[in-house]
Amino acid sequence: MKELELRRNGRPIILKLGGSVITRKEKPLTPNKRAIKRLAREISKAKVKRLIIVHGGGSFGHPIAKEHGIAEGFKDESQLMGFSKTSQAMTMLNEILVEALLNEKIPAATVRPSSFIVTKQSRIERADWKVVAKLLELGFVPVLYGDAVLDSAIGFTILSGDQLVAELAISLNAERIIIGVDVDGLYTADPKVDDSAKLIRNVSLEQLNELKDRIEKAKLVDVTGGMLGKINELMRAVKCGIPVLIVNGLKPNKIYKALLNERVVGTLITR
Amino acid sequence: MKELELRRNGRPIILKLGGSVITRKEKPLTPNKRAIKRLAREISKAKVKRLIIVHGGGSFGHPIAKEHGIAEGFKDESQLMGFSKTSQAMTMLNEILVEALLNEKIPAATVRPSSFIVTKQSRIERADWKVVAKLLELGFVPVLYGDAVLDSAIGFTILSGDQLVAELAISLNAERIIIGVDVDGLYTADPKVDDSAKLIRNVSLEQLNELKDRIEKAKLVDVTGGMLGKINELMRAVKCGIPVLIVNGLKPNKIYKALLNERVVGTLITR
Repeated sequence: MKELELRRNGRPIILKLGGSVITRKEKPLTPNKRAIKRLAREISKAKVKRLIIVHGGGSFGHPIAKEHGIAEGFKDESQLMGFSKTSQAMTMLNEILVEALLNEKIPAATVRPSSFIVTKQSRIERADWKVVAKLLELGFVPVLYGDAVLDSAIGFTILSGDQLVAELAISLNAERIIIGVDVDGLYTADPKVDDSAKLIRNVSLEQLNELKDRIEKAKLVDVTGGMLGKINELMRAVKCGIPVLIVNGLKPNKIYKALLNERVVGTLITR
Repeated sequence: MKELELRRNGRPIILKLGGSVITRKEKPLTPNKRAIKRLAREISKAKVKRLIIVHGGGSFGHPIAKEHGIAEGFKDESQLMGFSKTSQAMTMLNEILVEALLNEKIPAATVRPSSFIVTKQSRIERADWKVVAKLLELGFVPVLYGDAVLDSAIGFTILSGDQLVAELAISLNAERIIIGVDVDGLYTADPKVDDSAKLIRNVSLEQLNELKDRIEKAKLVDVTGGMLGKINELMRAVKCGIPVLIVNGLKPNKIYKALLNERVVGTLITR
């Protein structure tokens, strides 16, 4: 009972597993099963009391959404099948991840964003987080994901996992956010094309604004925007005092250490 | 545009696909793939303008839910994994059905009950159907299912597909309800054990109340109640003037004819 109260009162940690970590981005509909299995073990081992997982779409959601212009809204009926297929692809990826979590005895409970969130011009106006909050209270690990959702202005759109993370963090007063991506963190330039790129270990909101120009050059292919879009979304949470740690989810034990709040290579963004 | 208006204004048909139709009830986690494929074709061929599909759990949801006492609510933490596994099994079955619908070019869109419905003592108190309504408006076929859901009184429970059907029908002012099961309809006794059992072709609410005693003997194994529970739930919709047609979903073309409102062997319940 004491433990249940502690759990009730504690602030949740939000862990984002990027599509570039849990899927093979270059191969359509291909999960990175090894990474998923390892991450499920790391999450299980870390035994975080209140944890919310949000995952991206990678090679499941993005190619289909892009092909049908889902992020640009409803234009004609031919897109309906595209929306349905995007949604189904995300269900498949979510199911694979949840299966891995269940195998590690993590009581994962999927909350499907498109079932309760309607955006306006691709932005969450307000959402009812009672299901997520109640799942946490009972001891579940809610799992959400970037999804094809309805939009009151443009019919439908893509809700990015990063917007979801920021919104969840602010609404549920998260303790901190951990973002698992396929690079070590935020660099001074795009590390994939520029050898002089340096990892930024600590950065404040103010410094981040100064760095913005350089970051704009580090765009990654992503229907919802690359690293810049990611950081822009997350800055809203940082402004509310919630620190964001970006770590490499493809390297073993980074997520594990981050969950335990141990020192780990990555980028820490604080207010 | 005219078609879109018609679609907006039309009253939806609600089709329930019972777990006994789309799964092999005796084999855990086994879909009845042949029935699913045939039904997807029948639904596609019928071209209903506004259609909502609700499916049951059969050998996916029920055995796991029963094993962990999910319908009886939260008693201890050991049930958490049971809830998660029930939920995941239902995701799997839903994914198989939706895949078959997509293959027949039906723009199916899953709305996950546990993501937006919280019951109280296993009853839906009120639910926000805006996502379902908006999906219909855009031309999608919303797909829902009996699910493990949170409950404000007992922690969690099982929400039956039949309760969902009645609630959807009343809230969205459905034109009619079609229930696909593994028998031809409602009998005067249990047709599986009693040779003298006769199919009831037409029945009014009043007659149904008189028959209740006999029906109670036709109980089928189902964590959410058998045929009696099914009919009790649906009677709420009939009281609101929404007719319910029970047909055999395992026999080809029954669902197809029912969707077209053609004459078909079954039980029609009217006010």
